[in-house]
Amino acid sequence: MLRGRVVMIHVFQMLCPGCAMHGLPQAQRVTRLLVDAPLTVIGLHSVFEHHAAMTSLALGAFLAEYRYTFPVSIDAASADGDPRPRTMRAWALEGTPTTLLIDAHGRLRHRLFGVEEELALGVRLGRLLQEVEGAADAPR
Amino acid sequence: MLRGRVVMIHVFQMLCPGCAMHGLPQAQRVTRLLVDAPLTVIGLHSVFEHHAAMTSLALGAFLAEYRYTFPVSIDAASADGDPRPRTMRAWALEGTPTTLLIDAHGRLRHRLFGVEEELALGVRLGRLLQEVEGAADAPR
Amino acid sequence: MLRGRVVMIHVFQMLCPGCAMHGLPQAQRVTRLLVDAPLTVIGLHSVFEHHAAMTSLALGAFLAEYRYTFPVSIDAASADGDPRPRTMRAWALEGTPTTLLIDAHGRLRHRLFGVEEELALGVRLGRLLQEVEGAADAPR
Amino acid sequence: MLRGRVVMIHVFQMLCPGCAMHGLPQAQRVTRLLVDAPLTVIGLHSVFEHHAAMTSLALGAFLAEYRYTFPVSIDAASADGDPRPRTMRAWALEGTPTTLLIDAHGRLRHRLFGVEEELALGVRLGRLLQEVEGAADAPR
Repeated sequence: MLRGRVVMIHVFQMLCPGCAMHGLPQAQRVTRLLVDAPLTVIGLHSVFEHHAAMTSLALGAFLAEYRYTFPVSIDAASADGDPRPRTMRAWALEGTPTTLLIDAHGRLRHRLFGVEEELALGVRLGRLLQEVEGAADAPR
Repeated sequence: MLRGRVVMIHVFQMLCPGCAMHGLPQAQRVTRLLVDAPLTVIGLHSVFEHHAAMTSLALGAFLAEYRYTFPVSIDAASADGDPRPRTMRAWALEGTPTTLLIDAHGRLRHRLFGVEEELALGVRLGRLLQEVEGAADAPR
Repeated sequence: MLRGRVVMIHVFQMLCPGCAMHGLPQAQRVTRLLVDAPLTVIGLHSVFEHHAAMTSLALGAFLAEYRYTFPVSIDAASADGDPRPRTMRAWALEGTPTTLLIDAHGRLRHRLFGVEEELALGVRLGRLLQEVEGAADAPR
Repeated sequence: MLRGRVVMIHVFQMLCPGCAMHGLPQAQRVTRLLVDAPLTVIGLHSVFEHHAAMTSLALGAFLAEYRYTFPVSIDAASADGDPRPRTMRAWALEGTPTTLLIDAHGRLRHRLFGVEEELALGVRLGRLLQEVEGAADAPR
């Protein structure tokens, strides 16, 4: 259950240069910096091209080599032959990397296709965390 | 009056490499990113060495060349011959660059001597801004 | 025939972070900068781990996504079950990335395991190119 | 006497951002990397604006703070009121930073206004050094 926690989903492909060079290292920095905060970072491997190269076996090797520590789930293939996997299609994502920020009430609060500016991402995360923790501090 | 606004004070010397290379450009990025937020960024030129080189005339040339747009005040010299200027001494600052974050109630909430990690600074600013803006949104 | 040309061989694995983040982009910068010089840049994909993930099909997708323009050859598997491929083993390479510089007479002049400092690599390349071109200019 | 040595002159102003952020650190990297080569790196402080701020006293403080180890000379003021100092004017330099490369025979071989790409500068230096050292190796 992630209710009560801020969630950052990093949608990537292991062979996407913007993901490997910028997005995934940033997700790892967020994971490390905010280890004690009510935040969950999740990677989502949404393969929409080069399917035969980006298998789950290859993904496992990639994640091990780069030493990413956040959990990664695999977006399931569409049944009807659409090259886009199910979640990517359901959410109508434009491509990878995409960062999604979801607040503690489960509402999508930010979505960006491309690489996030580090300072701007920090401000967004700080605001969402303060919503959770400020509420905890408030008088009842 | 800064009550009701978050304040970030960047304490620097124009000839301090960590300030010129990292701290001041960061203060400018914060200024630009959060131009619409209840945040005021202020530079404080606290000269404690090479006084004859870092005059107000030299500071003016420096700020013009680097195109910094946030306001900068000059820490006044101590009367008793202490090389440290008054505010630096009153606040017992260790050196430059130092970043201070003050919340909307005027309380010092963060102080760091050295260069702030960009993501961490963003999270701190986001939290303090949310305290202000969350309060504005709260039911009365 | 590469006799008469300087050769830079970049030995890599597509899932090696130091290669993907630093070594291969550097090989591409060398390729672009020295396009008119008597220099040939060659990538050598020497897979010694995660063999099932780094297939030639996966390599093709990787090179296409990163838009590398220099030629890449694939180090052949050893016949006796050694995980190290043949060239890597024959040359006793320690790992990836490794950069090899070979002069216009076919002699190995530099070998470094790890990421080359950009300025230092430039100086080495300039010296080797001048050996070739200086000879061409010399009076007969 | 610099005859027989390659000379790199870095023309700068201490309050020029491109110089302080990029050009001077690069000159220091060249100095450190090629300490054993027949190369002399020289800084030239050519002040053409903010003269009252960039005094020799201020320059001394600046160089001490940044720990630059290469020698720096000061371009002399023009007698006729031209804000450009004498060498800058004699050489018709466009501004700062400017990098000049002079070969072992005293001929200007490269001149660039702006920041040099690190790899490209390395290649130029390597070629000029090889001209000197290749000549030393050549049969007589």
